[in-house]
Order: sequence, then structure tokens, then C-alpha cells
Amino acid sequence: MITLQDCQQQDLQDPLGSLRDLFDIPEALVYLDGNSLGALPRSTATRIARTVQHEWGQGLIRSWNQAGWFDLPHKVGDKIAQLIGAASGEVVAADSTSINLYKVLSAALNMAGQDHPTRRIVLSERSNFPTDLYIAESLCKERGMRLQLVEPEDLLGALNSDIAVLMLTHVNYRTGAMHDMQAFNVQAKSHGALTIWDLAHSAGAVPLELKTAQADFAVGCGYKYLNGGPGAPAFVWVNPLHTDRFWQPLSGWWGHATPFEFTPDYRPAAGITRYQCGTQAMLSLVGLDCGVDTLLAAQALGGMNALRKKSLALSDLFIALVEQNCQGHGLRCVTPLEHSSRGSQVCLARDEGAYAIVQALIARQVIGDFRAGDGGTHPDILRFGLTPLYVGFVDVWNAVDQLRQVLQSGEWQEPQFNQIQIVT
Amino acid sequence: MITLQDCQQQDLQDPLGSLRDLFDIPEALVYLDGNSLGALPRSTATRIARTVQHEWGQGLIRSWNQAGWFDLPHKVGDKIAQLIGAASGEVVAADSTSINLYKVLSAALNMAGQDHPTRRIVLSERSNFPTDLYIAESLCKERGMRLQLVEPEDLLGALNSDIAVLMLTHVNYRTGAMHDMQAFNVQAKSHGALTIWDLAHSAGAVPLELKTAQADFAVGCGYKYLNGGPGAPAFVWVNPLHTDRFWQPLSGWWGHATPFEFTPDYRPAAGITRYQCGTQAMLSLVGLDCGVDTLLAAQALGGMNALRKKSLALSDLFIALVEQNCQGHGLRCVTPLEHSSRGSQVCLARDEGAYAIVQALIARQVIGDFRAGDGGTHPDILRFGLTPLYVGFVDVWNAVDQLRQVLQSGEWQEPQFNQIQIVT
Repeated sequence: MITLQDCQQQDLQDPLGSLRDLFDIPEALVYLDGNSLGALPRSTATRIARTVQHEWGQGLIRSWNQAGWFDLPHKVGDKIAQLIGAASGEVVAADSTSINLYKVLSAALNMAGQDHPTRRIVLSERSNFPTDLYIAESLCKERGMRLQLVEPEDLLGALNSDIAVLMLTHVNYRTGAMHDMQAFNVQAKSHGALTIWDLAHSAGAVPLELKTAQADFAVGCGYKYLNGGPGAPAFVWVNPLHTDRFWQPLSGWWGHATPFEFTPDYRPAAGITRYQCGTQAMLSLVGLDCGVDTLLAAQALGGMNALRKKSLALSDLFIALVEQNCQGHGLRCVTPLEHSSRGSQVCLARDEGAYAIVQALIARQVIGDFRAGDGGTHPDILRFGLTPLYVGFVDVWNAVDQLRQVLQSGEWQEPQFNQIQIVT
Repeated sequence: MITLQDCQQQDLQDPLGSLRDLFDIPEALVYLDGNSLGALPRSTATRIARTVQHEWGQGLIRSWNQAGWFDLPHKVGDKIAQLIGAASGEVVAADSTSINLYKVLSAALNMAGQDHPTRRIVLSERSNFPTDLYIAESLCKERGMRLQLVEPEDLLGALNSDIAVLMLTHVNYRTGAMHDMQAFNVQAKSHGALTIWDLAHSAGAVPLELKTAQADFAVGCGYKYLNGGPGAPAFVWVNPLHTDRFWQPLSGWWGHATPFEFTPDYRPAAGITRYQCGTQAMLSLVGLDCGVDTLLAAQALGGMNALRKKSLALSDLFIALVEQNCQGHGLRCVTPLEHSSRGSQVCLARDEGAYAIVQALIARQVIGDFRAGDGGTHPDILRFGLTPLYVGFVDVWNAVDQLRQVLQSGEWQEPQFNQIQIVT
């Protein structure tokens, strides 16, 4: 029997507990949606105000040099590199995840086309985040290739000599299931296929070792676990073995070897710089810089390994409390119980009412989110992101306790909780 | 003989003079680089602070709906539409100019490929802004097409039945020369070619009537005359005759007909929504919203036509003062004297020292910029942007007077003005 006192004790003993002070989160709220939009770091408002009023307002055009704007995509990229097992100079923060995926998938298809011209298939998971599939569908159509979608358990069996690229999201956005990145890379390599990883739900959430794991390409999101703010720029990493082999097709001037010579012919810069395209959204990029700093602040306390340990303790607690306190209400945990297969979220399926239950929880100041099923294999889901930087054990207790009350009272069946709105 | 008193008189009689109060510009500065980075609107700092602290910090994920984030690309697009002769629902503010150009050029090539499959050439101007040429080079390479670059006077003659797309920047970034958009559209149409216009130096600077002029596609920049802030999102317009005919290849989830159903297959939204790709950088987009509002504030005072009248008076004055006060120093005006061929900037060529003269002017608090020549047809250039929203006639007097002093004193030859730095 787990009690509130146990959770209070866990918070007291949490070596990362002080990191919550880096964030400005409403007192009354239990915020379990950092996997959709990370919370606001305390440093961000001041830093952005300085960028707007001092750097832009006073420095004007001079700030491209004097305030370091022009180099900021690399500077932020170097910080992100520390979180994903990449080296300095290998990552750039720019554009959106979808656009970066277009860049790396184009480059990967160019590489595969040269090395293995008979391979005509991009392999992915049917429940991959849809925008990844849309981008792949578009590129496959353009190049006369085929996008093959299978269930996760069929991925390894589907690898064969027809596969040009294996494109996966490391942690599934719906279920929180995490792939064994290294195992897939080794298997893909043994079949001669390249790998692309979308780290949207991994970067800042679980330890990553892209180079050790021999990944080929990766992209990731700036506004989830990296706390960069709404729509913050994404990032892109390319294994340095490949970076200089090909252009990516979004060959804008920020990817040029000498952008300020204004030559009419494109000549790609060496290294990851060629994965930039146009001028970057500086205010949003400054927000990302502050967000990434909150993760670097955890380095002194054990870094991503310590965050991972806490994340698993939080999700273990969440699952155990649902089991203990919410039985008989039709909830099924669809997040893997095995630690090695779990990201940093807990997902509960329910045959009906999932949307309304999430709304009723939000009304009680517990913010998770809803992801629609497909009416078939994939059920509707209540999703709870557990960001170890700012979520504590008592937060988990309170969230599950409110969930229990919503279910026991049946209040989620009230009409105001059943009006569907757009949610992201 | 023009005197300082004449310029003071012109400022006193300027019906748009009060608009400068909408901006926060350092007192001592003459800022003539709004064609590279527009000045800071006074409303921006407060609005961005509210977005960061209240909408993000307190509202968190709920602000995608409650603060209108999700619809902001359309809302800002609708405002921009008013400035470029387009209708509500036809413009979306998103991504960078380079990326938007990739979208529309891809769509145009798809259209041309279906309607005129034998046409294999994209025609543009050799001195077009390089990133436009790089993107076109990339797409042409991918599709086995050819990018033909000619001098501006040879463009009309180069239009023939081999041309799929005529891709031009309306106002040249180096010289400030403006094309007759309608004439080019009519000629292109008579040869069966589609037109794409880059409005980077036109939107917010000169009146535009995209639909009346029968343009096919347009993109433009948010951080120059639209005052959106460093790297603010760009915009894209597609003639509604074409919008629903093709996908653009950056088919991310924000362009999907039903993004929150999370279906694995891409189904493009109707209308301009399909020109969105991934999640947009909200802090930067909020900045753009404030920037565009400064132009809408001019609507009550005569709008773009009144701004155009003042812009031409400013550039006429600049050219006349250089003629009057800077003779014998090797400056040549390369901006067209004909009003109908001039944008909103004045460009002076000089055989040597252009970079250093610009640096010496900056040291004297007059900010213009330098654009390198190619050592051949195109000389080095001193570039002065004249933004009628916040530049006055005395500013022009002061700028040219400082230029005169820099030239007469020869101080630009001092070593500190000859250290080349990156500039944008």
C-alpha cells in the first residue's frame, strides 16, 4: 500500500528536487504535459526581454554579430549534443522537426540511391508520429519509392535487402514505448539500411548515445522535454561519417560555405552547417537556449542518468497508484512495464470517455492530454508526461488521486467535458 | 540648393510623421537598415512578455487554443494579405522565405509538369538574392531541369515555350531596382509560364496588387519592412486558382486536413493551410504580428500608397543630397531614378572602400549596410534602406551629411574600418 506520506518522503530524498526552482509553474497545477509543451524556465522571460529590448531594439542589425545571433543555431546545437551522445559541431538547432526530417530523409535517400540503387523502400512503424509519415510519404512519392508501415513487433522481420532507410521515432508519442536504438541500428546496418531517429520524446527525457549506438541521422523537438517554448526550433544531427557526402535539398543561404559572398551558385558548407536553410527565428531560438540550459543545470546532479532514474521512479509510482487506487474503472496501462522499453510518460487506454476524463482532470488542475485512437488496434489514450526536472512524487500522487475522484464521481460524463476542441 | 531647413520643413509637413512614435529607436541613431532588419515596434516587448509569462508560463499547453496560437499563422497571414493585394485566407505566415520558396517552386513545377511537360527551364535573374537561386538550383537538379540566369534587361527576351517558371525578386536586394510585376506576369502568361515573386524587399515597402497583377505564387520576409524581429517567420501566398491543385512536398501535420485525427496518410487541407508544415515558432510569430500591426496603423493615414509617396520623396532627397554634397568622391547611384523602377532603398556604388565607408558611417551612428560586388558587372555597394514608417527627411539630411564628412576626412581609410566581419 503506497501512501501520500511515502510520496512526500520520496520528494524529500529526491537529489533532483531543487531543479523545479528553475521553472515558473503555477502553484496549484500538476503539469503532466511537458511531453507536449515543456514548462517555462525562470530565466527565459528576462533573457527574451533583453533580446527584444536591448539586442534588437538598441543593437538592431549589429546584433547579428555582436549578440551572437548568427552563431546561435550552432551554440544551442552544441549544448543539445551533450544530451544526445553527439560531439560539438555535429548538431544544429533550426527550423521544425518536420522540415529537419525532410532534410535528413532526402540526404539518406541520396546516399542509399548511390550505394544501393535497387533499394526502393522506406520502412517505418504504422503508429509513428503522423507528420513523420507524411514527410516520408511525400518524399517517397517524389522519388518513386515506397513507404512500408508495419507494427513495432514486425519491424526487425521486415528488414531486408529492399530497405533503403529505417525511419523510427525512438519513444512512441502515444504509448511511451521505447525502441532499443542500438539493436535496430545494428540490425539495419547488417542489412545495409540507413537509420533515421526522431528523438521528439527522447531528447532531454532519456539518456541517448547516438554515436555509440551507430545511428546515421537524427532529428528532435525543441519544445517538449527541452523546454524551449511554443514552437521552439527543432534540431538535426548527422553522423559525421555522412555529413559531407550529400546536400540536403533545402539549400538556403545559411547552409552555404560563404553566405556573405552572395555567389549565385550553391556550395554547401562543410559539416552540419549545410543542414541550415534560411534565417532562423531568433526570439524562439533564444527561448530554446534557455530551455536547454535547464537540462545542462542537471549535469552537476548526475545529468541524464539521474534524470532517467527519477523518471522511471515517477512512472513506476504512477502505474502502481493507478493499479492500487483506480481499479475497476476500465483503465489499461499501455506503456511498457519493462524499464528498458519505457520512455518518460504513462499512457492509459480506456474504451470510452478518455477525452472527457482528460478534460475533467484539467478542470481539477491536473494537465495531461488525450490522443485519439484509430477505432481498431490503437485505443483512445490518456497521456501523462513525467518530466523529472519539475515533476515530483507528490505531484504523481495528486494526479492519480484526482483521476480516482473523476472516475468515482462520474463527473467526466457531464456535457462540458465532452465538447471536442483542438488540442496539441 | 537643398538645406537642412528644407528637410525640417518636410518633416513638419509629413502626414506620416507620427508613425515613428510606434517604434523604439535609439535617439542618436539614423537607422537606414530596415530593409535588412526592421526596427522594434513599441508594442512588441510587452506583447512578447505576455506571451512568455502569461500564455506560456501560466496557460501552458492550453494556450494553443485559449491564446489563439494555433490559428496565429492564418491571423497574421490575413493581415499581411491586406498589404499585398490578396484576400483573407490566402496567406499564411510560417517558416523562412527560403523554405516557402521551396514549397511554391515545387508546386509550380508540379503544375507545369502536368500542364506543359516539355518545359524544362526555370528562368531567373543572375543578381536575384542568392538563397532564391540556391533553392531553385536544388529543385532543378532534383528534377532534371535547368536554371537559366540572365541579366534583368534580357528577361523578357528569354521568355519562350521552354520556360516552366519565371522566378523573380520584385525589388532587387543590391540595387533597389523594381520590376514591373504586372508586365512580367502578362508576358509570362502569354508564353504559358508561371510566375513566382519574392517580395522580401517589397512587402510593407511598396504597394502590391498580387491578384490584380495576376501573379501565380509569392513569398516574402517578415523581418525587413514588416518589422517582425530577427528571423521572424516569412509568408506565402498562392493564387487561389492554383492552391488546391497540388501538394507542396513539405507536407507536415500543420498542412493536414485533420491534423488532430493523427491518421497515417497525408490528406492536404483545402486552401493555403496546406502550405504550412510543422509547428510554428510562436514567440517569433507573435513578434511578426506586432510588426505587421505597425503597417496596419498606417492604413488610416493613407496606407501603402501614402507610405510609397513618402518613400519616394525620401529616396529622391537622398539621391539629390548625394549629388549636391558628395560630388567628386567616386560615388555612383545604381538605384533607378525612374520612380516606377525604384523600391524603397538607395544604393551607391564605389570602386573601392565601400565596406570601410559603411563601417565609418556606423561609427558615426548612421546605419546602412554593405553588399559585396562580384568583381565584374556588379560593383561593391553602400546600401541605405528608407523605411517611411520611421525614417524622416532630417534623418536623410544627417545621413548624407555624415557620408560627406567620412569622404572628405578620409577617415574611412583608418584600419579599424577595414576589418571584415560577417554582416547580414
